[in-house]
Amino acid sequence: MYKPITLKDIALALDLSPSTVSRALRDSYEISKKTKKIVNDYAAGVNYQSNPMAAGLRSKKSKSIGIVVPDLANSFFSQAISGIESIADKEGYHTIISQTKDSYHKEIEVVNHMANRSVDGLIITMSSNTTEYTHLQQMHKSGLPIVFFDRIVDEIDTYKVICNNFESSYKAILQLIENGKKDIAFLATAPQLSISKERMNGYRAALMDQHILWRDELIKFCPSGGSDHSETEFAMKQLMALDQRPDAVFVAGDRLSMSCLRALKKLQIDSDELSIIGFSNVDLIDLLETPISHIRQRAFEMGQISMTMLLKIIEAKYPITDFDTKTIDADIFWAEHLGLDS
Amino acid sequence: MYKPITLKDIALALDLSPSTVSRALRDSYEISKKTKKIVNDYAAGVNYQSNPMAAGLRSKKSKSIGIVVPDLANSFFSQAISGIESIADKEGYHTIISQTKDSYHKEIEVVNHMANRSVDGLIITMSSNTTEYTHLQQMHKSGLPIVFFDRIVDEIDTYKVICNNFESSYKAILQLIENGKKDIAFLATAPQLSISKERMNGYRAALMDQHILWRDELIKFCPSGGSDHSETEFAMKQLMALDQRPDAVFVAGDRLSMSCLRALKKLQIDSDELSIIGFSNVDLIDLLETPISHIRQRAFEMGQISMTMLLKIIEAKYPITDFDTKTIDADIFWAEHLGLDS
Repeated sequence: MYKPITLKDIALALDLSPSTVSRALRDSYEISKKTKKIVNDYAAGVNYQSNPMAAGLRSKKSKSIGIVVPDLANSFFSQAISGIESIADKEGYHTIISQTKDSYHKEIEVVNHMANRSVDGLIITMSSNTTEYTHLQQMHKSGLPIVFFDRIVDEIDTYKVICNNFESSYKAILQLIENGKKDIAFLATAPQLSISKERMNGYRAALMDQHILWRDELIKFCPSGGSDHSETEFAMKQLMALDQRPDAVFVAGDRLSMSCLRALKKLQIDSDELSIIGFSNVDLIDLLETPISHIRQRAFEMGQISMTMLLKIIEAKYPITDFDTKTIDADIFWAEHLGLDS
Repeated sequence: MYKPITLKDIALALDLSPSTVSRALRDSYEISKKTKKIVNDYAAGVNYQSNPMAAGLRSKKSKSIGIVVPDLANSFFSQAISGIESIADKEGYHTIISQTKDSYHKEIEVVNHMANRSVDGLIITMSSNTTEYTHLQQMHKSGLPIVFFDRIVDEIDTYKVICNNFESSYKAILQLIENGKKDIAFLATAPQLSISKERMNGYRAALMDQHILWRDELIKFCPSGGSDHSETEFAMKQLMALDQRPDAVFVAGDRLSMSCLRALKKLQIDSDELSIIGFSNVDLIDLLETPISHIRQRAFEMGQISMTMLLKIIEAKYPITDFDTKTIDADIFWAEHLGLDS
């Protein structure tokens, strides 16, 4: 794998401290002419490219960061924003928030607008309509610190925060199977979203491990993610019209879970007929008519970690080249009427 | 009442068009030296102060506006934001959003930060902790266009959008009384908020008109607005411990309604014992265990009108001095189990 030369590599090779190398490259008055020449000659020889990701080297800071989410009406996102702000407040950073309403074009507009207003960095989760990432790749290359959370982009190398989508989905499906469910439908938002893929992989792995055949007709996508109820209702109708009807449905999207519940109510399908477990961070889940088994993400914590990671990039003294993706456990709650242990 | 001299007054007095007067005052090359002298002499004579509210006269526009709300997790606010954005998008304005978490200090910070980032205007609804408005009065005086919605400020003269808090509260209480309720408790968030006052006035007027005595012990405030459940629970416990217990409760806050519902569930008080009607814009209200009578504000429409009003100020060619407060009807939905007609 190609690894670009870093400041640290130069420091190591020349037996200097990284900060001396950094200052020499920036032509600081604190460094002697002789050292500057040695450093610059060596850097030129190894084709060192100063990494714009070293945002700490940038001179102008606005002490504000941008948060871009698909939909503010989704509790998961408002909880994550509160987590981000809990750290931002403490560290003296302002936050400005925009929603994309899951539109690719709005996302481009919002990201460009934030960058033009010189935020110091961006925390973003992708729109369900986005399949192309040039707008973010450009920002990232030009040195804008970016952290992804929830709906992440593989193609861009930076810090990312997700919940354990694979494991929690696997666990949920396994539990359903252990309780006698065999025909488990899979309902998700847009198929290209990282969360849809990871959750489907968990679903698939659990079926395979339990020797249950994959059935294409049990897989349904609702790209509106539950904001268009008729879409969800149509999918549920199709599922319930199958010769071999599902006995359970696994909902891989947050707002989609509530939309699915509404569709079942409208279609007068009760929970004895069809078990439901879905991702949901809704605050009112304890007040619902139908107790729903759900996977709750630690949204606040995910927001906190995203902000901590963003600060790490913004305030880095040296370029960061090794990024990792932090995976946070989600919590599974089984509705009492299912009589399942989690 | 003191009325400052306007551009229009000068135009009328000198028999010129307002745009000629405006251009003359701005020293435009399109206006003759002679006319400029006449206009400037007259303006000086009547002590004309160019009104900074004439934002249209400002040269630099960012084509972005700021939205400040107390809490993004409140459905009413996220719906209003979507309404604001539906107009902003159409008119080519960007929106940046911040939440204050109902903190006065955060509100000051957020408003200053937005103004420093040169938004063209601000749409704001007040934090429950805010009792002092200097930070907004200063911005307003210095010429930043501001529109208030929902929780408004009487002391600042600009466009405002509210729902018919008085009338819908009056109507709700009247209906409860007509259905035999006599001991109606009043539960609100912070007492100094405009919405608390207007809704209480509606409650008070209905009691008076129906010759029902006002009882102080039936009035409870939960300043956290339902984000601190223990506060709501404590208030409900106190109410239910009264010698003459309430037979109904009117909840004058959005998140507070759901918090009240949760408190009643916890205290095992069912709807036969205590009727509840509250303001609520929650999307899941049809999926709740206890059908709750509620007053739903037309949040999206209120957002749209706020943005339209803000644009009117931002794009005004002449200073605006006559502002009005637009009142939008709310819709009352009676839970079926109450057997009431709306």
